[in-house]
Amino acid sequence: MQIKASDIAALLGGEIVGNQDVELNSVSKIEKGVPGSLSFLANPKYLHYIYETEASAVLVAKDFIPERSLKTTLIKVDDPYRAFTKILEQYISIIDYKEGIEEPSFISNDAEYGEKLYLGAFAYLGKKVKIGKNVKIYPGAYVGDRCVIGDNTIIYSGVKVYRDCEIGANCILHSGAVIGSDGFGFAPQEDGSFAKIPQTGNVILEDFVEVGANTAIDRATMGSTIIKKGVKLDNLIQIAHNVEIGDNTAIAAQTGVSGSTKIGKNCIFGGQVGVAGHITIADRSRFGAQSGLNKTITESGKDWNGSPVTDLKSSFRTIISIKNLPELEKKVIELEKKLEAINKQ
Amino acid sequence: MQIKASDIAALLGGEIVGNQDVELNSVSKIEKGVPGSLSFLANPKYLHYIYETEASAVLVAKDFIPERSLKTTLIKVDDPYRAFTKILEQYISIIDYKEGIEEPSFISNDAEYGEKLYLGAFAYLGKKVKIGKNVKIYPGAYVGDRCVIGDNTIIYSGVKVYRDCEIGANCILHSGAVIGSDGFGFAPQEDGSFAKIPQTGNVILEDFVEVGANTAIDRATMGSTIIKKGVKLDNLIQIAHNVEIGDNTAIAAQTGVSGSTKIGKNCIFGGQVGVAGHITIADRSRFGAQSGLNKTITESGKDWNGSPVTDLKSSFRTIISIKNLPELEKKVIELEKKLEAINKQ
Amino acid sequence: MQIKASDIAALLGGEIVGNQDVELNSVSKIEKGVPGSLSFLANPKYLHYIYETEASAVLVAKDFIPERSLKTTLIKVDDPYRAFTKILEQYISIIDYKEGIEEPSFISNDAEYGEKLYLGAFAYLGKKVKIGKNVKIYPGAYVGDRCVIGDNTIIYSGVKVYRDCEIGANCILHSGAVIGSDGFGFAPQEDGSFAKIPQTGNVILEDFVEVGANTAIDRATMGSTIIKKGVKLDNLIQIAHNVEIGDNTAIAAQTGVSGSTKIGKNCIFGGQVGVAGHITIADRSRFGAQSGLNKTITESGKDWNGSPVTDLKSSFRTIISIKNLPELEKKVIELEKKLEAINKQ
Repeated sequence: MQIKASDIAALLGGEIVGNQDVELNSVSKIEKGVPGSLSFLANPKYLHYIYETEASAVLVAKDFIPERSLKTTLIKVDDPYRAFTKILEQYISIIDYKEGIEEPSFISNDAEYGEKLYLGAFAYLGKKVKIGKNVKIYPGAYVGDRCVIGDNTIIYSGVKVYRDCEIGANCILHSGAVIGSDGFGFAPQEDGSFAKIPQTGNVILEDFVEVGANTAIDRATMGSTIIKKGVKLDNLIQIAHNVEIGDNTAIAAQTGVSGSTKIGKNCIFGGQVGVAGHITIADRSRFGAQSGLNKTITESGKDWNGSPVTDLKSSFRTIISIKNLPELEKKVIELEKKLEAINKQ
Repeated sequence: MQIKASDIAALLGGEIVGNQDVELNSVSKIEKGVPGSLSFLANPKYLHYIYETEASAVLVAKDFIPERSLKTTLIKVDDPYRAFTKILEQYISIIDYKEGIEEPSFISNDAEYGEKLYLGAFAYLGKKVKIGKNVKIYPGAYVGDRCVIGDNTIIYSGVKVYRDCEIGANCILHSGAVIGSDGFGFAPQEDGSFAKIPQTGNVILEDFVEVGANTAIDRATMGSTIIKKGVKLDNLIQIAHNVEIGDNTAIAAQTGVSGSTKIGKNCIFGGQVGVAGHITIADRSRFGAQSGLNKTITESGKDWNGSPVTDLKSSFRTIISIKNLPELEKKVIELEKKLEAINKQ
Repeated sequence: MQIKASDIAALLGGEIVGNQDVELNSVSKIEKGVPGSLSFLANPKYLHYIYETEASAVLVAKDFIPERSLKTTLIKVDDPYRAFTKILEQYISIIDYKEGIEEPSFISNDAEYGEKLYLGAFAYLGKKVKIGKNVKIYPGAYVGDRCVIGDNTIIYSGVKVYRDCEIGANCILHSGAVIGSDGFGFAPQEDGSFAKIPQTGNVILEDFVEVGANTAIDRATMGSTIIKKGVKLDNLIQIAHNVEIGDNTAIAAQTGVSGSTKIGKNCIFGGQVGVAGHITIADRSRFGAQSGLNKTITESGKDWNGSPVTDLKSSFRTIISIKNLPELEKKVIELEKKLEAINKQ
């Protein structure tokens, strides 16, 4: 893929300073620029790199005026970072464009799908599956019977969607994600064994949901496990049966949410957080990494940390107190001695 | 799938009150009942919903007498919850019934299998594999050379079973589960690199074991990693090489068990628990979520919590003490001041 | 597979004492020896087993002289454990040898590969993929467009490698490992939603890297996520975008490393450790299981533990102090009482 600096400038409505015919074939960070690459300058901290970068062209702000001569071609735009992101999106959409049905793949007789489908080899569409337009299903992905998948959704290689689940439009499911596995529900028997409680519900992902690699979302016992619009889940996350997660909540890797818990909108979870079952978490709650959350949170917009969680400020005070604990022990011993000395007088 | 209330009643040996011809095609919770669905009433807390539910039929106890008029059809049975579970099992076994071999799939010449096999497309049976009766292997699952799989076992899409492993009867393995990957065993070399210690053993799952989505169970260095009868493992669990887990132990998601540890029978682990290697855990031990277990437990039937674990009562006292720590610090400062005042007198 | 004790002795340059014609077909631990198996005696603690073992032959040190009569055949070698490991490697390389291309598999027209390739059924090689010599790619593995894979590397069933990633020589990737999924990068928008930041970089695994089952390594936003030579990653690990891990670092299961963090050489991480983003960790650092690491570590070769981490010694003191906390509280109450008594005098 080869494109001229002048074409990039035209695409972005930018102004060229330097060689407008220089050919670009990759992207780079300004401090690691290589010949043939396009870079950008947004953070003033990186300003000095522009005089040394090997990148062939750099997106800069409209008001940027170099103090010395430059090797690189400048493309002046309103917002260099945003313009760069736009170029990256275009770049990926071209370099990674997929359309058509590779063979062998498996499409049930009664499966339906819209235009511009990509179905990779060894991908599987079960009975009565309904797939929207411009959906990309990579090799080896599995879509169980009666699943529904919305427009523009990308399902990467090896994703497994169990029967009867619903995936919205503009979702991205990364490799190894499992949607709709059975909830962990068992009834203890008198002999100590467990009887399986049938898990007859499903999983619903609304629009614009992203699910990370090897994340697992269990189907509901009855009803639905629901991941609402715009939720972003990182890798290796566990979402148990009957959980609900509100709009635009973002959860970092290796966090686990136990059964029937309801998480509000616009919450942010650090990595490796554990959330107990059957609790409710208010909107805009934020949790530090490795937190342990065992109770309902009713006040919205607060920061939490620790295991069990306390508010962030208390948590920091606790961390300091624990650090000073050996010191405190010494003080107490000192006090005991002094008191004994007084009593002996 | 459409079935009359009278057919459900006949199946359960129940008695109908209301329209016995009402058609049912799904199940629901009583508080979220929809027309055409069957529900149940077991918990007295939910009693009032029976007068409003949109469910077309509800399983109730034999002695239930409504206080007001009802829209829904009642089916009176001995134990509504158990009856409902029975119906759910039937429902799933019908809606999700699979039999036959889909193409393309891969069956080695010398692989053997019993009647009523389901082998999904892109599933793989290695050399000398032995599969029992009524086994269901979903699309894209992989069963390595010389593996043995018992009757009635379900292996969902994308499960990977490495060579020479043994899976019992009536097991369920969820998507992304990996059985028999190499144990994490390396011998440190003088130059700081690691030499791989060959992992020649296997994994044995006994009967009635359930393994959650994306859970990994490593093969033994020599001998077997053994998961005994009735063990239930949730999603994203790590079981290292040479571990043994006793009958009917249940382990929640994201827990990890290090190499060569022996866990007793009927234990229960919360989520995200960490268990050290080469230790032994007595029967009926129970562990709170996020516990860290670094020593052998010899006394059976106790509850543990915290990291490192202490008995549950101590753990709760510690949590309270830590919470009160800033208060304790203040008291000590106060004492120091008072003592100083005394000494000055 | 059947081999005589005399053949093993010849292979190892060892000396036989006993029946040199005994046939061997498996391996065992000395304490669990079975007829027909080869075992070894390295640890003096296990010495007494040699007089009872059912193993048909045992590797022992050259200077071993039995005190009583033996049933088993001895094979005397310089280093019994090393010799045994060598035999195990041979055993696996024979029992598990794979070569050739199984059908159906998917090889893009412009994919290249070297001699002795094993490509299992349902495996996928994308456009312009370059595969070295003696590479083994198991059934259902996916190698995206333009990926490069070095000589002798093993990719087990169901591994997914996204486009443009580079895997070195002599690597082992276990089932369910995901290489090159998108980094978790989003720009918060004013309406509370997130805009995806394109993830255009890749993942580079250098030579001799082992990646455990269901471990996920995200591609860089730009540039590369780099796992250097000899790094060993256990199962279910999360490596975020733009992370770098130095030579021969070993990380146990379920640990997570956040974005842009640089880990030094020869570090060792216990299981379930959490590492914050944008920090640097000095060479030869070691971390206890369940540690939480939130700051740069500049001093190399130290041991760390706890969450947040402190040096190992402080961590142990803190654990003891916390355990003694209820005792400390009692002491303070006692002091308060005594002081009050003094003040009343």
